[in-house]
Amino acid sequence: MAGDLSTERILKWVGGAAAVSATAFALYKLAKRVGPLSSSWFAELGSMWPGQAMCLEVEKVLYKGRSKFQDVLVFQSKTWGKVLVLDGVIQVTERDEFAYQEMMAHLPLFTHPNPKKALVIGGGDGGILREIARHPSVEEIDICEIDGDVIEMAKKHLQFTAVGYSDPRVRVRVEDGFEFMKRHKNEYDVIVVDSSDPVGPAEVLFKEPFYAAMSAALRDGGVAATQGECMWLHLELLENLLGFSKKLFSTVQYAQISIPTYPCGTIGVLCLGKSKGTDFKNPKRTPSQTQTQALRYYTPAIHKAAFILPAFASKALGQA
Amino acid sequence: MAGDLSTERILKWVGGAAAVSATAFALYKLAKRVGPLSSSWFAELGSMWPGQAMCLEVEKVLYKGRSKFQDVLVFQSKTWGKVLVLDGVIQVTERDEFAYQEMMAHLPLFTHPNPKKALVIGGGDGGILREIARHPSVEEIDICEIDGDVIEMAKKHLQFTAVGYSDPRVRVRVEDGFEFMKRHKNEYDVIVVDSSDPVGPAEVLFKEPFYAAMSAALRDGGVAATQGECMWLHLELLENLLGFSKKLFSTVQYAQISIPTYPCGTIGVLCLGKSKGTDFKNPKRTPSQTQTQALRYYTPAIHKAAFILPAFASKALGQA
Repeated sequence: MAGDLSTERILKWVGGAAAVSATAFALYKLAKRVGPLSSSWFAELGSMWPGQAMCLEVEKVLYKGRSKFQDVLVFQSKTWGKVLVLDGVIQVTERDEFAYQEMMAHLPLFTHPNPKKALVIGGGDGGILREIARHPSVEEIDICEIDGDVIEMAKKHLQFTAVGYSDPRVRVRVEDGFEFMKRHKNEYDVIVVDSSDPVGPAEVLFKEPFYAAMSAALRDGGVAATQGECMWLHLELLENLLGFSKKLFSTVQYAQISIPTYPCGTIGVLCLGKSKGTDFKNPKRTPSQTQTQALRYYTPAIHKAAFILPAFASKALGQA
Repeated sequence: MAGDLSTERILKWVGGAAAVSATAFALYKLAKRVGPLSSSWFAELGSMWPGQAMCLEVEKVLYKGRSKFQDVLVFQSKTWGKVLVLDGVIQVTERDEFAYQEMMAHLPLFTHPNPKKALVIGGGDGGILREIARHPSVEEIDICEIDGDVIEMAKKHLQFTAVGYSDPRVRVRVEDGFEFMKRHKNEYDVIVVDSSDPVGPAEVLFKEPFYAAMSAALRDGGVAATQGECMWLHLELLENLLGFSKKLFSTVQYAQISIPTYPCGTIGVLCLGKSKGTDFKNPKRTPSQTQTQALRYYTPAIHKAAFILPAFASKALGQA
């Protein structure tokens, strides 16, 4: 089997990744030595979740490389399908990606009464595009991904998400999303920010000026959803995000998604409404029969339930 | 630091644990070799979640031993507090245990209009007792834990859960919960089955005869909650559990808890009502002000939201 070779390659790749800690590197070394007993393991260590690591068994490395912005790794895992890793952090696995893509797209889209023009910032794998394309009212879908290599790699190795690029309404722009939004005011009904963590190229996407540009890029009644990190790990970061968001948006609501391969098995979605009267907890539309057949996570009931947080998070974020 | 010695000790301990796979052992070996770069890591591998492992960084091993039934390990982790591991599987971490204990206890207790007598099967760490004791209406709390060593170890090392034993209403029985229930018919208002996974001593707790004995041990209007494994991993097991439960109980409803250190970051609770009219989604009581101050996960809103499942699970389990 290709296990040994793959491990060697992961090893070298990780050795060069700036964002991966010495500990992560050590785990890779370990994985290399385990040859006779198992294939290699990918260990997701990161400064944003010290002392814990999700590990996935690797069957084969499909792609590894350094883009202009980050380290890109794709591997075939033993039980989670194909896996995309950026700078050492799991972004997509074939088995659970639908949870994230569906909720990030449909929480804002079903909340808007009649979305016509959508923008995705980041999301180079294409999964969010795939979900937005399920809405017949949407006429234009722009995507602004800074890293063209991620798009190319997804088209080659992650067809289950990259299928999102095949919709004729999609227009791809390989550039900085912040700069793009500054030039496009009052233009979008829906913006989805599908970013990696605020370490590396996505750092700017978690700061106030970016949120101000997002608000300005939305039309009246426009809605946005941004990757909202983890209530178990990042309450302080979230309090800060919600703090400045409330100055820029009329509605700020925070939802949860169950997704096994993100740290702590859950990720948040920060939902933002430009105008008064937007209420993500009471969506304006429900899925058609065609949409329902395609959806594997999203339902009208889970849309509402996702905003109910455990006591500790609800208290910290001031969300009843 | 004690890291090296601890790793040696974990290594030996794991080598002897029947339920731990060769792969897990390999990861321990790796952890041992990583000495210069990090302290050791605990890797949770198991046959019920192949190809994935939650890893926690170990600061110090506090206890390890083989009881009559299972391997028992307690360690101080770097970022998750004290951790209890049985047969290689994480049962309790100091940082997130409240999510599980609160939901397992309060979903049935707040659903019952006036619970007076409660039984816990398993739950040797004491955390479920701690939560049941928050209900003033409860007059007697029996616990039936088969493994006395777990109780002793918890009292020594896990005071945050073992505090549950200090309530005067608690009576401890170190014996088989199945046999105990057969002798106690029509006696309990609430039963909570806080078991490990159906591999090893808890296997019997996931079979139909146990559920029949549980139904018989409940009074009219009685309610039960059992550890319900993971919707991302064990849908087939769950379909089977729900199948025979529906023959034995009038109400069968399945809820979710977000808990980072259980596989996939979520665990289910199977909620069972003996008599018609019991509806876990519409609890009969809400927390008092004193209770609310103590609760860190449970709220009346999360009680209801926990029963809303993602489309794939809701379809498989037939739960609207």
